[in-house]
Amino acid sequence: MDFIKEYNLFLEIEIENIKFPSTPANLYDPLSYFLTLGGKRMRPMATLIAGDLFGVSIENTKYAALAVELFHNFSLIHDDIMDKAPLRRGKETVHQKWNDNIAILSGDVLFVKAYEMLAKNDIKYLGELLKCFNRTAIEVCEGQQLDMDFENRDNVSLDDYINMIRLKTSVLLGAAFEMGAIIGEASEENINCIYSFGVNLGIAFQIQDDLLDLYGESDKVGKQKGGDVLANKKTILSILAKSNADNGQLNELRSIQNEIDNDKKIKRTLDLFDLLEVKEKCILIMNEYYNKAQKSLNDLNINNSKDNILTLFKILQKREY
Amino acid sequence: MDFIKEYNLFLEIEIENIKFPSTPANLYDPLSYFLTLGGKRMRPMATLIAGDLFGVSIENTKYAALAVELFHNFSLIHDDIMDKAPLRRGKETVHQKWNDNIAILSGDVLFVKAYEMLAKNDIKYLGELLKCFNRTAIEVCEGQQLDMDFENRDNVSLDDYINMIRLKTSVLLGAAFEMGAIIGEASEENINCIYSFGVNLGIAFQIQDDLLDLYGESDKVGKQKGGDVLANKKTILSILAKSNADNGQLNELRSIQNEIDNDKKIKRTLDLFDLLEVKEKCILIMNEYYNKAQKSLNDLNINNSKDNILTLFKILQKREY
Repeated sequence: MDFIKEYNLFLEIEIENIKFPSTPANLYDPLSYFLTLGGKRMRPMATLIAGDLFGVSIENTKYAALAVELFHNFSLIHDDIMDKAPLRRGKETVHQKWNDNIAILSGDVLFVKAYEMLAKNDIKYLGELLKCFNRTAIEVCEGQQLDMDFENRDNVSLDDYINMIRLKTSVLLGAAFEMGAIIGEASEENINCIYSFGVNLGIAFQIQDDLLDLYGESDKVGKQKGGDVLANKKTILSILAKSNADNGQLNELRSIQNEIDNDKKIKRTLDLFDLLEVKEKCILIMNEYYNKAQKSLNDLNINNSKDNILTLFKILQKREY
Repeated sequence: MDFIKEYNLFLEIEIENIKFPSTPANLYDPLSYFLTLGGKRMRPMATLIAGDLFGVSIENTKYAALAVELFHNFSLIHDDIMDKAPLRRGKETVHQKWNDNIAILSGDVLFVKAYEMLAKNDIKYLGELLKCFNRTAIEVCEGQQLDMDFENRDNVSLDDYINMIRLKTSVLLGAAFEMGAIIGEASEENINCIYSFGVNLGIAFQIQDDLLDLYGESDKVGKQKGGDVLANKKTILSILAKSNADNGQLNELRSIQNEIDNDKKIKRTLDLFDLLEVKEKCILIMNEYYNKAQKSLNDLNINNSKDNILTLFKILQKREY
């Protein structure tokens, strides 16, 4: 476990050392602000661990790791505008604290900063890294678009939903691992394995997020319990409920959307979901993806110890719900 | 002149051949729409001409040229949101035709597509190209932020303004030439020269844009005459007027801002500007930058003919006002 603390400290120092010009203040102040809001730094950690797995020091993977983290933060700044989210990690979002224009533009410049960070890598790896990064960035945009599209669609299937979260959140985790492996000069098979590990882990993790929103202990999750339910948000839970409901239960689902008493809304949702065994079904699906991730990890053909990556895997897996 | 037509046709075909996936439609339809709105294609043309100057075929500079054009279009899509512009080249802007969220996200994905295009270049040049592209993209964002900041500032000097247009519009023209020269394996001195040529040309061109808005023949310019005046926009003209006005004239300038009759507003502006010799002063400054550009062109140390780049220079210079 100690390496997690060590890598985290390393990343926090590196992120703190990313300095922006002082002017134009409206462009750069939001970036210094947003980058220090914290977060799990799960993605850059993935790059460091993947590099380590293939025998590369964290000094040599840090630029790729930071590029992933900067890209992630760029996408959050823009997503927050689109989702009209007032808070992120308990603090005001950029568009809330400043305004939409500033959030658009400082997001854009952060996106370039991510590429600038990526370009610091050895030219030997730059072509491959750039290919991976571009492909992933495009997929993340596609995922965000699908997510917005889904809010206006009534017929989102489980497969649609999984594909959306794969694009919106999981491919970036896959790419984070992949980039460490590219710098580690891993074989094509191993690169595919570790990418697939990251993507499946990411999907499982996102499903777990949906679960935790309703079934997590809210003090551990750090969010309002049932926030997704109260916002009538489409999640894997609501999709599973809908696809398993009979006509009467479908009516109840629709009726719950209009319930104005928050406590009652959560209670009625939990009652119906219990009846439909939504939580159990969801856990089954989540575990399917954790198992796929585990399989990809087993398939990795290397002599080095897999201990660190297994540790990360278990930490992510064991969040409580 | 024939090479201009040839290069233009080449670029139009190449741009038409950039195909986007069919889904998510809300992400990609705006891009196909926006890219075919036209435009002068001045920037990609600059890359082709610079490559040609250093002995490289347009086939070998086209990816860099297209990357510049895609980036330019990305920045227009986002700028149009920020400026709340309903029209671009006489057609609806993306945020107007779809909505702000779609314009943010399809702009983002177009930005990645620009990098994807850039990454198609020979790996030999990729490091240098990427460095130039990133630096420029950051400056363009800074310029847009300064432009927005200036609208709320009362003390914008001529130097401030020139610096803003340099960043917002001119460095991209400089970079477009530079990228052709990089692929042409030009010397560092020649790269600096052609970059400086492009930047100064871009500044002069932008000053000319401000001039044409008020003094151009509106049927040639294709915009409403005096649109900047009617919108109380800060331009080099308004800045020159303000810095040369006495107290009474400053009062008249402020009073004109509140004039509600459009024809009277233009008339009063023209009368005051004539008195202050704003047009003449502006032409002097513009020519200063055209001369700087000309000097950089003369300083280019090459054996190949400078005819084509001179032709482009003259075409851009001779727009009427």
